[in-house]
Amino acid sequence: MRDISSFAAGQWIAPGAGARNIASAITGEVIAQAGNDALDVQAMLGYARDTGGPALRKMTFHDRARMLKALALHLREQRQTLYELSYDTGATLNDHKIDVDGGIGTMQVYAAKGRREMPDAHVYLDGPPEQLGRTGAFMGRHICTPLQGVAVHINAFNFPVWGMLEKLAPTLLAGVPAIVKPATATCYVTEACVRMMLDSGVLPAGALQLVSGGLGDMLDHLECQDAVAFTGSADTAFKLRTNPKLIKNSVRFASEQDSLNASVLGPDATPDTPEFDLFVKEVQREMTAKAGQKCTAIRRIMVPQSLLDPVIAAISARLARTTIGDPRAETTRMGALVSASQKRDVLEKAALLAGEAERVFGDPDNFTVEGADREKGAFVPPMLFHCADPDSAQRVHDTEAFGPVSTIMAYRDLGHAVALLNKGKGSLVASVITNDGEVAREITLGAAAFHGRLYFNNRRSMAEATGHGAPLPHMVHGGPGRAGGGEELGGVRGVMHYMQRTAIQGSPDILTAIGEQWVPGATELTDKPHPFTRTFSTLMLGETFNSDSREVTLEDIETFAHFTGDTFYAHMDDEAAKANPFFPGRVAHGYLLLSFAAGLFVQPDPGPVLANTGLDNLRFLEPVSAGDSIKVRLTVKHKTPRNDEYGEVRWHVTLTNQKDEAVAEYELLTMNAV
Amino acid sequence: MRDISSFAAGQWIAPGAGARNIASAITGEVIAQAGNDALDVQAMLGYARDTGGPALRKMTFHDRARMLKALALHLREQRQTLYELSYDTGATLNDHKIDVDGGIGTMQVYAAKGRREMPDAHVYLDGPPEQLGRTGAFMGRHICTPLQGVAVHINAFNFPVWGMLEKLAPTLLAGVPAIVKPATATCYVTEACVRMMLDSGVLPAGALQLVSGGLGDMLDHLECQDAVAFTGSADTAFKLRTNPKLIKNSVRFASEQDSLNASVLGPDATPDTPEFDLFVKEVQREMTAKAGQKCTAIRRIMVPQSLLDPVIAAISARLARTTIGDPRAETTRMGALVSASQKRDVLEKAALLAGEAERVFGDPDNFTVEGADREKGAFVPPMLFHCADPDSAQRVHDTEAFGPVSTIMAYRDLGHAVALLNKGKGSLVASVITNDGEVAREITLGAAAFHGRLYFNNRRSMAEATGHGAPLPHMVHGGPGRAGGGEELGGVRGVMHYMQRTAIQGSPDILTAIGEQWVPGATELTDKPHPFTRTFSTLMLGETFNSDSREVTLEDIETFAHFTGDTFYAHMDDEAAKANPFFPGRVAHGYLLLSFAAGLFVQPDPGPVLANTGLDNLRFLEPVSAGDSIKVRLTVKHKTPRNDEYGEVRWHVTLTNQKDEAVAEYELLTMNAV
Repeated sequence: MRDISSFAAGQWIAPGAGARNIASAITGEVIAQAGNDALDVQAMLGYARDTGGPALRKMTFHDRARMLKALALHLREQRQTLYELSYDTGATLNDHKIDVDGGIGTMQVYAAKGRREMPDAHVYLDGPPEQLGRTGAFMGRHICTPLQGVAVHINAFNFPVWGMLEKLAPTLLAGVPAIVKPATATCYVTEACVRMMLDSGVLPAGALQLVSGGLGDMLDHLECQDAVAFTGSADTAFKLRTNPKLIKNSVRFASEQDSLNASVLGPDATPDTPEFDLFVKEVQREMTAKAGQKCTAIRRIMVPQSLLDPVIAAISARLARTTIGDPRAETTRMGALVSASQKRDVLEKAALLAGEAERVFGDPDNFTVEGADREKGAFVPPMLFHCADPDSAQRVHDTEAFGPVSTIMAYRDLGHAVALLNKGKGSLVASVITNDGEVAREITLGAAAFHGRLYFNNRRSMAEATGHGAPLPHMVHGGPGRAGGGEELGGVRGVMHYMQRTAIQGSPDILTAIGEQWVPGATELTDKPHPFTRTFSTLMLGETFNSDSREVTLEDIETFAHFTGDTFYAHMDDEAAKANPFFPGRVAHGYLLLSFAAGLFVQPDPGPVLANTGLDNLRFLEPVSAGDSIKVRLTVKHKTPRNDEYGEVRWHVTLTNQKDEAVAEYELLTMNAV
Repeated sequence: MRDISSFAAGQWIAPGAGARNIASAITGEVIAQAGNDALDVQAMLGYARDTGGPALRKMTFHDRARMLKALALHLREQRQTLYELSYDTGATLNDHKIDVDGGIGTMQVYAAKGRREMPDAHVYLDGPPEQLGRTGAFMGRHICTPLQGVAVHINAFNFPVWGMLEKLAPTLLAGVPAIVKPATATCYVTEACVRMMLDSGVLPAGALQLVSGGLGDMLDHLECQDAVAFTGSADTAFKLRTNPKLIKNSVRFASEQDSLNASVLGPDATPDTPEFDLFVKEVQREMTAKAGQKCTAIRRIMVPQSLLDPVIAAISARLARTTIGDPRAETTRMGALVSASQKRDVLEKAALLAGEAERVFGDPDNFTVEGADREKGAFVPPMLFHCADPDSAQRVHDTEAFGPVSTIMAYRDLGHAVALLNKGKGSLVASVITNDGEVAREITLGAAAFHGRLYFNNRRSMAEATGHGAPLPHMVHGGPGRAGGGEELGGVRGVMHYMQRTAIQGSPDILTAIGEQWVPGATELTDKPHPFTRTFSTLMLGETFNSDSREVTLEDIETFAHFTGDTFYAHMDDEAAKANPFFPGRVAHGYLLLSFAAGLFVQPDPGPVLANTGLDNLRFLEPVSAGDSIKVRLTVKHKTPRNDEYGEVRWHVTLTNQKDEAVAEYELLTMNAV
């Protein structure tokens, strides 16, 4: 029997008084123990808040993104060890890959997004500045900064690795330390993964702690800067969420509870279409992957009335080919549930469903298990129920058997399908297999508000589609109502759950100092050499170049028109231009202005500016007529390091005319040598 | 005595059994009654969900924005009536303007933002699409759709109009019906405002209902698509938030509770600076506006140790000039608290503060009231406390006397100021008066996570600054911890609280059908005439123009360089260009490519395209050398109506070379005649 330790305030703490036994899902034998009543939860909180938090907050978003990348690479090298440990949870190698590789992949995506979509700075800017007064002397903008407390992650048993890493990646990227509490039934896998991360030496002290076993009264000590993220059953969530201390201190509580996810076969997806086969495959896969122990598994199957029988037949045929047995065997397609008590629970819930629906496939008293003892392991067969009256049924819409169990029901029309979908009262995901955009839109308008994710698949997307049940780091995971009302992942959105959004108001200079991004109206530094002669590292926010002015002649306009082929009448025909609501007569081309502007600011000789890589938010504000003169103002707005050799500079550019009116405004991107 | 009615399921319901009396804040006499135990709250919920919601959801965001604008104009015409009614709440004309004009202004900002920042469509797109597979056949994106339930707004007594409208504007813009429950003490003002809105005929039936008096057991009947937004005391919030039905159904509950907001005088703001006077003025205004009954009022005043005495003297001098009395009198600067019970509560809390702090200004037993009876009205004087030991004090950081009461304390250095700020354990707003960007940044990094808003003011911004205590529709209002952990306003951010964010996955065509915005990879319609010859209303998403190709010659590059003056070496000097990490040798100017592209797609003669108004997200992807050929693909991505004459078309543009590699990509904006 192995001792599964906790990692608390910098020390590994072995199991002690109050430890619980953990059994193998396959043999039923006790393989490990975890838990220690003497765990000092307040010391853990203090270690995270006073040691881990400050260390993480000293790093920039890019620093933390690099840390995630290093962690992911370190784990990737050792994933075989995690696979080996995972067999005792009842899962197959394919299941391990979802868990282990999925978790590492999530960390990698967050590492990449942190570098690409967040600044190399300590403050994240949420949206552009807003002018709050007449002249722009008082501005507003929103920023996000890391919570200064600790994130407590309470995870479910089904994904001991992914369940930890999908919460940990956005938390660490935000700059917040975490205390991870895996479900005891599979905590031996999580503990091994935590050891790997701590041994990597990549994490600052206090950034990651582990509770194997019970949390004690940790939640009673949480404060306004702490956050809880929970994944598990509705009953446990309710118990935790009603903790008066959490409510009094407005502690953030994100809950991701199991829900009655559904999959709809579109009315267009008749048996002769690729969508029909696709649907049957997705349903079978979602029913049997992880032996149905997935919070996103398909619990309700909705098909057009006319297709009910063919779908039941096709799903049953596929389920019949699903070999159940020892997960270590290569031929096994479905392993065991995680424990004997989980098996009891699934069978009880299936019995409840049987009150409203008929079992049309699978018999828990009569099925074959290959290479393992059917009675000692927590095995159940896939079970398909058919509910003939889904409108008056209750259980099929609110009772989740957390195993390979699903209920099929027929719908009359799309409105009926939407009504049935929404009878689940909130789910993590609903899928629709259809090749008809109008079907997709109608279901979306009717049902999106009840679901955290809507997954559409068809012949066009099926080769690349990632599956109904797969939460991706790019997409929000969570859902309203029965699904817990929480939200995780979704790229940078998931990082925000561990940050505080704060509205900032002040002068442009104050906003610039806070946000590390120059705000229009802030001081322009004009006492330096041409900024195009200065390297990335020496350039300061606000450095400004004011160009000479250049007259735009009618000849310029003619020349440009014939050279480029852009002989639009507004440039060529005074009378026609005058009839246009936007122009006073013939005007210069917008691209002529941009081109002349470049001529006014570019430094011809080799220097730190390596290339103009792009341009954003260009708006033409006033027409420029022949005889007008333009000049350019160019200010360093923002700097983003890209590698050891160069970084991206974002310039705020304003073109003005001889009356000092802005005629065009944009942001220019250049790549500059460090 | 006036009867204050409720508006329930389409009918005005007069007070009945269980009605409560409402007294004037000035005379103490009963002026009205409100409440009816027989109110059918389930009928109200049903009316909102089944009648109001569907009607609102049929409208687009622009339709609803226009509705808000019409409502605001209608209220503006009748605001004098609301002012008149408001005097009995104890408030002065200046206070009414904060309430009434502030509420109407909030609605106007939401009307404008709805038109400018949201689509004329039913689905709001949250972020760009994400490619989830290798080729782009399977994509993801996030959308927001209206909750399909009802928003229950429970408001505080202090802002009977603004408190309603600041919640109502984002709710209605989202497409969600509301049931408004004002605090009974001032519900007669709210009721009058609701009557105006209903009489305007602008709102669809079921969009707005009113509960004057108690809510009964309404909250017990809320479900997963409903939302509660509460403003008021922490005690009431706690009672409501622990409702097991709300927690079980994951009903959204946004709470905005009174907090111990603070204002900090920067160490640079010595008595000889404009910032010193500014600070004193802001503190006095925040203490006395609405007689201090503002959830954003300054409760804690933090000043450098050396400035403690001068600040106390200056604030006291200004407070001494604050005339207290009948709010209808023009000379009155501060009116009464809302009720006798509120006065009792304030005096009790002030007594608690007195245990830790010395009262240095204001005596509740000895002050002058002009033009009203000091004993019958709910008058209190402004009271300033000084806490000499703020580090060990508790009450001054956790006890809010909801009246003209504030505590001053000295800080040693910025770190100490941050620590004191954060001892409030979460607030709605903290302000800092400083002219030093580094002070602003240091306080932000240390304290932003504890505050919903940070307000900076100084000599540069003071002419336009809107005040420490003023929540603006553009900026988030709410705060962590003691402030309730909720969030309101903040422009479109506030609308999202009444919408469900859903991750959508599918093929580009499916995403296009759902989002009403063409997604790269979706079908390109090429069987129509040149899209520049088609009007705004006839153009369809996906219509695509494929141009002829044009060779870029060395002569073109030379000509363009000398014409524009852009003789950057990468275009002019093959050897120098080769030494640059991005170029294979001399390359064409990016603006030359853009200009040639325009020449390839522009239609010269007058037609529906009126002007090129801008360009977004331009990225140069591959260099183009002399001898390469470019061609353009132009696809209708999105349409936004602007007025009866024209609308904005957003085009997805790709420039490719002779090898079909993309060399540049951007979005072009044109204004097209309808």
